[in-house]
Amino acid sequence: MKVEGKHYRTIWEAGSGGFAIEIIDQRYLPHDFVIERLITLDNFCSAISDMHVRGAPLIGITAAYGIYIAALEIGNNPHFDDALLNASHSICKTRPTAVNLEWAVNKMLQSIHDEFSVDKKLSALLNTARRLADEDIANCISIGNHGFKIIEEISKSKFGQQVNILTHCNAGWLATVDYGTATAPIYKAFDNGIPIHIWVDETRPRNQGARLTAWELNSHGIPHTVIVDNAGGHLMQHGMVDMVIVGCDRATRQGDVANKIGTYLKALAAKDCDIPFYVALPTSTIDLNLTDGIAEIPIEQRNGDEVRYVEGLSDGKIREVLIPPESSPAANYGFDVTPARLITGLITEKGICNPCEEEIVKLFQSNK
Amino acid sequence: MKVEGKHYRTIWEAGSGGFAIEIIDQRYLPHDFVIERLITLDNFCSAISDMHVRGAPLIGITAAYGIYIAALEIGNNPHFDDALLNASHSICKTRPTAVNLEWAVNKMLQSIHDEFSVDKKLSALLNTARRLADEDIANCISIGNHGFKIIEEISKSKFGQQVNILTHCNAGWLATVDYGTATAPIYKAFDNGIPIHIWVDETRPRNQGARLTAWELNSHGIPHTVIVDNAGGHLMQHGMVDMVIVGCDRATRQGDVANKIGTYLKALAAKDCDIPFYVALPTSTIDLNLTDGIAEIPIEQRNGDEVRYVEGLSDGKIREVLIPPESSPAANYGFDVTPARLITGLITEKGICNPCEEEIVKLFQSNK
Repeated sequence: MKVEGKHYRTIWEAGSGGFAIEIIDQRYLPHDFVIERLITLDNFCSAISDMHVRGAPLIGITAAYGIYIAALEIGNNPHFDDALLNASHSICKTRPTAVNLEWAVNKMLQSIHDEFSVDKKLSALLNTARRLADEDIANCISIGNHGFKIIEEISKSKFGQQVNILTHCNAGWLATVDYGTATAPIYKAFDNGIPIHIWVDETRPRNQGARLTAWELNSHGIPHTVIVDNAGGHLMQHGMVDMVIVGCDRATRQGDVANKIGTYLKALAAKDCDIPFYVALPTSTIDLNLTDGIAEIPIEQRNGDEVRYVEGLSDGKIREVLIPPESSPAANYGFDVTPARLITGLITEKGICNPCEEEIVKLFQSNK
Repeated sequence: MKVEGKHYRTIWEAGSGGFAIEIIDQRYLPHDFVIERLITLDNFCSAISDMHVRGAPLIGITAAYGIYIAALEIGNNPHFDDALLNASHSICKTRPTAVNLEWAVNKMLQSIHDEFSVDKKLSALLNTARRLADEDIANCISIGNHGFKIIEEISKSKFGQQVNILTHCNAGWLATVDYGTATAPIYKAFDNGIPIHIWVDETRPRNQGARLTAWELNSHGIPHTVIVDNAGGHLMQHGMVDMVIVGCDRATRQGDVANKIGTYLKALAAKDCDIPFYVALPTSTIDLNLTDGIAEIPIEQRNGDEVRYVEGLSDGKIREVLIPPESSPAANYGFDVTPARLITGLITEKGICNPCEEEIVKLFQSNK
């Protein structure tokens, strides 16, 4: 996507004299556009756990490049494979919920399975990381094409009146390598002249909606309005939302979906108000090993200070302000699980399917 | 309630040499405890519309004293009644959703119906305002007694294990003259030795939960944890909430309830997870003229900057920080309506009833 006229991915290879990766350090958006260079495994682990990058697909790609950097650090070492396995464990521990992390790390480890020399292993790892990044973009484009048809249908049924779409958190290009998952159909609809307007849930506690999604939509000129996470139900009750699209951090084989905390509440309201609720995700986000999302998907708990303190711009500086009394503790659950029964459909790169085991498994068997 | 050992109401008569009212200016809590003196009708209108005081019952009592102050301003005037009616219109326009405002103003106007001299009118108005304030306290105590029994039952059914109660916004003593509506049963349960823990929704956009409810519970020593408004559904799915109690700004004769934006989402989750969802309110909050809450209750829209900017403590100073991009607009709906079908019961000063027309009307006929 373009940032002030220049094309960016969220992660790219950089560096003259030594391999390095650069990312957009998303902690400073929308008020500062900061690029960070990652050159050690530790850099990668911090970038993921401290959320310089976030979003399941982007976490996966960052981890893939992290494994390659770890391999470069290990270098020509008789215990190369063991050392790389250790590095994999470190990076997999950074965040527990998004399955793409584990998925990407496994793809990387599989890619060197048949290689014996360290040189060949290094080159296989780099090729795999590059391939995963390119596939992520292709997947997002496909998700955009499939999801576009849904928005187009709604637009027709409204006789060309503005389509109002609600989204939670950021499943935009900042959550992927480019284009985004939930936003890909939105960008495509806008670029194809369908009049749309996006309700942007601010998405407490880290405000990825207000900070990242609003920034993305602004950059692209898409009409949008920021709302508190509390507001969606009221808007849906009053016919002000035509559809909901969100991203996903891990889905189960029966179609339960873990996504940013609060997604479940919006899905309940959509169901109650008879509004279609779609989840956009690459199939790499589906964990076929799991069935019951509420019982089985691990939910990350983060520091309560992310709830207690809010960061923003004040007098031209980024500052943190404390909201509750100093002595009041806070809990910080990162995700919740939306049961399949509340979901209208899953928009994947392989097409749209109902959130049920039969259709999800069939998706994996298709060659599309 | 006590603030650092000293007993306070949220509103009281003050002033030597001229009548005045003092309030706790709640905009500065929890970081500053500021008392404001109100001496003109304009002071009262600003105090309500700019939310120095908030909460349906307290808005009502503030309006009542505001009418008395307006009457003092009008003084010995042949057009006293017309002038007071004008003042009533001004104060009724300050906030549209809480019906207690209109209710209290009507009680004030009715009280001078049979008085002819301005002196007698003034004394009737002062007596009425005082009576309404005292009744508000008595009502909260009654609500506490009725609601206490529900908590006691849950505690018994959990064999004395901690009862986890979720509340949204502030329906505490800061929303009334004293004790609170939703919090009255909580204070009583705690004071009677029932082990309780409160999940405090921070309640965006104005954070009345994190700022006011947490401050109240802290002052009273009640175990609590602040959470983002997004978190309640996850907690309910995982058995971490035993009941929900919220306040109310206006209820209809069929039991639909307008309360702080986001209440509807919590009610949906409680229903989905089979958790009792109670609304605590004095009967003055029930508007027998209305039936369908979603269609009929007016929902206040406030300035979008209340969503875009967050206020808190930074380096010992209260500051505002901007969250989204400067150019992203925000919408700010103050309330939503929870349909009666999602509500387990209404806890009123006259007892607990089901949210249905038959029982609500019967409540008004009872002499309790």
